[in-house]
Amino acid sequence: MCKPWSDKLRKIQPYVAGEQSKNPNVIKLNANENPYPPSPKVKEVLSNFNTDNLRKYPASDASELRTALAKAYNLDTSQIFMGNGSDDVLALCFQAFFCSDKPILFPDLTYSFYPVWCSLFKTPYKNIPLDENFRINPDDYKEENGGVILPNPNAPTGIYENLDFIEKILNNNTDSIVIIDEAYIDFGGQSAISLLDKYQNLVIVQTMSKSRSLAGLRVGYAFASAELISVLDAVKNSYNSYTMDSVTISAAAASLNDDKYFKDTCNKIINTRQKTIKALETLGFDVVPSMANFVLATHKSVKAINIFEQLKKQNIFVRYFKIPRIDNYLRITIGTDDEMYKLFYALKKLL
Amino acid sequence: MCKPWSDKLRKIQPYVAGEQSKNPNVIKLNANENPYPPSPKVKEVLSNFNTDNLRKYPASDASELRTALAKAYNLDTSQIFMGNGSDDVLALCFQAFFCSDKPILFPDLTYSFYPVWCSLFKTPYKNIPLDENFRINPDDYKEENGGVILPNPNAPTGIYENLDFIEKILNNNTDSIVIIDEAYIDFGGQSAISLLDKYQNLVIVQTMSKSRSLAGLRVGYAFASAELISVLDAVKNSYNSYTMDSVTISAAAASLNDDKYFKDTCNKIINTRQKTIKALETLGFDVVPSMANFVLATHKSVKAINIFEQLKKQNIFVRYFKIPRIDNYLRITIGTDDEMYKLFYALKKLL
Repeated sequence: MCKPWSDKLRKIQPYVAGEQSKNPNVIKLNANENPYPPSPKVKEVLSNFNTDNLRKYPASDASELRTALAKAYNLDTSQIFMGNGSDDVLALCFQAFFCSDKPILFPDLTYSFYPVWCSLFKTPYKNIPLDENFRINPDDYKEENGGVILPNPNAPTGIYENLDFIEKILNNNTDSIVIIDEAYIDFGGQSAISLLDKYQNLVIVQTMSKSRSLAGLRVGYAFASAELISVLDAVKNSYNSYTMDSVTISAAAASLNDDKYFKDTCNKIINTRQKTIKALETLGFDVVPSMANFVLATHKSVKAINIFEQLKKQNIFVRYFKIPRIDNYLRITIGTDDEMYKLFYALKKLL
Repeated sequence: MCKPWSDKLRKIQPYVAGEQSKNPNVIKLNANENPYPPSPKVKEVLSNFNTDNLRKYPASDASELRTALAKAYNLDTSQIFMGNGSDDVLALCFQAFFCSDKPILFPDLTYSFYPVWCSLFKTPYKNIPLDENFRINPDDYKEENGGVILPNPNAPTGIYENLDFIEKILNNNTDSIVIIDEAYIDFGGQSAISLLDKYQNLVIVQTMSKSRSLAGLRVGYAFASAELISVLDAVKNSYNSYTMDSVTISAAAASLNDDKYFKDTCNKIINTRQKTIKALETLGFDVVPSMANFVLATHKSVKAINIFEQLKKQNIFVRYFKIPRIDNYLRITIGTDDEMYKLFYALKKLL
């Protein structure tokens, strides 16, 4: 059949997310989801929500959530941008802040969505290799560029760098926007929020998908100077005026206001992570030091792809990336203690 | 202060949505919102939602909603794309289908987001003027182009064209993608869905924001051939893997399954619209024939901007566009009978 319109279609290789399963017996350690439910306040919001109001567009400034974020992070509401998951926020950041002909810089091993957005928005980029220990060297980020984006902790390595490191990156890049993607910051790292007053070119992106157990609700945010936030707002309002729905705005605000639950959950995961690392080491794994809710590990003798497939047969899903340098590693999300015991015994048996 | 990174920021004029008000006494006839609440099934979903599941990412295929849409519109699930409001769906359609150097075509008076997306995505475009009665002439859409997008009914005119007209547009544009934006189709028009089998280059976009009273939930969708939907999916998955949250997916599906409520609500609005048109005519208005949930009207002697401002003082919000050709018109959303009576008496008094 003749399709004369085919040349007008976009050709693109999309990002591929971790496999989903509808089988409730699966131990799902492949998408960095939180094993604990969200704050009970979220349930209250949904149960009591006045659905009659859904006939109206959401509040254009999502003020309920913005105010909750400002309070939680001690910021002015003008320093806050919110979106439909941190992927939405990051995609809008790429369009708002990476508008030069020079390549943006990010590590060779990092969140695999970055090159996909570069392809979608035709943003030139250059990969900077991590060193042999999977560390980022800040002096590698000195060349002329159109912007810098780094996750901290990095993914899928889990390695965290302290604020001195972030300042080095910022001081090396005073004429670009520097985005620090803090999707995993709440599992033991220190956010760069305290640097916002000092660096007008710093953008911090966070998400409620991991530490707040709200992957299913789609909430992400950016913190930056009011000037940069106004650019993000303009781009967002040129794309979709209302990205966040009214239920999500209220439920996310309620979650943010429950600080004790949040901290307790993060501490549980941090404890389980430390136990998991030790357990994996006793089984002969080398584990990359992680400050995230996952670990990247390689076994001294058994191939990662084989372990991945064996675990899958036993309904334990971990993540395997067929990517140079880490194609003999597994990325394992930290679940509950019980889930990690089951993983441990499954691994012990098959190794 | 020196800002050497300023040249890397995006400069763009965003779309401006209808004014919001937190005053519950405002009669809000400025955003084409539905005056009736959504189906009671939406309330049930929220009340009974298992929030523990929000720790997980939404189902990647949003199959619950996709299946409900397929059933409601008698389509295959492969012909359906869903997004975060029809603005999200349309923005992705622009990126997926308008990828040539030739200008896309749309009317001079139409949804004002179209030129904003062209600016955001650097898509060339050409405005085709509506005729003196605000009608679209399909023979104006014969020139070489990168794509065609038309709302039917058109906004802000409210004028509906039948399927013969849509076929003329399609036959004039066999080498482009033709998008019919049916945001207002449920208020008396006939959808072009029946043409999908015949035209592989047709894309239909709809929304739950108007006829389903779910503006606050952000749900839009596209219907097209499986081939075109796969391109939309690839672009979406290059932007944000999970745009629709789990609550929205379930609540929207429940609303779609309540067909009787939907039809009753639409019929109420159609009846109120016809009464409103007659009432406005008795007050000296010329009303453009509308098949939408709004009317575009101009008064024979009093200036639209003055009526707009007087109504606002009385807490009745309608929409005024400072746009050539319609800068002496008001766009008035159809509310409840009671709201339209109040509008009528306010107008009667001030005219």
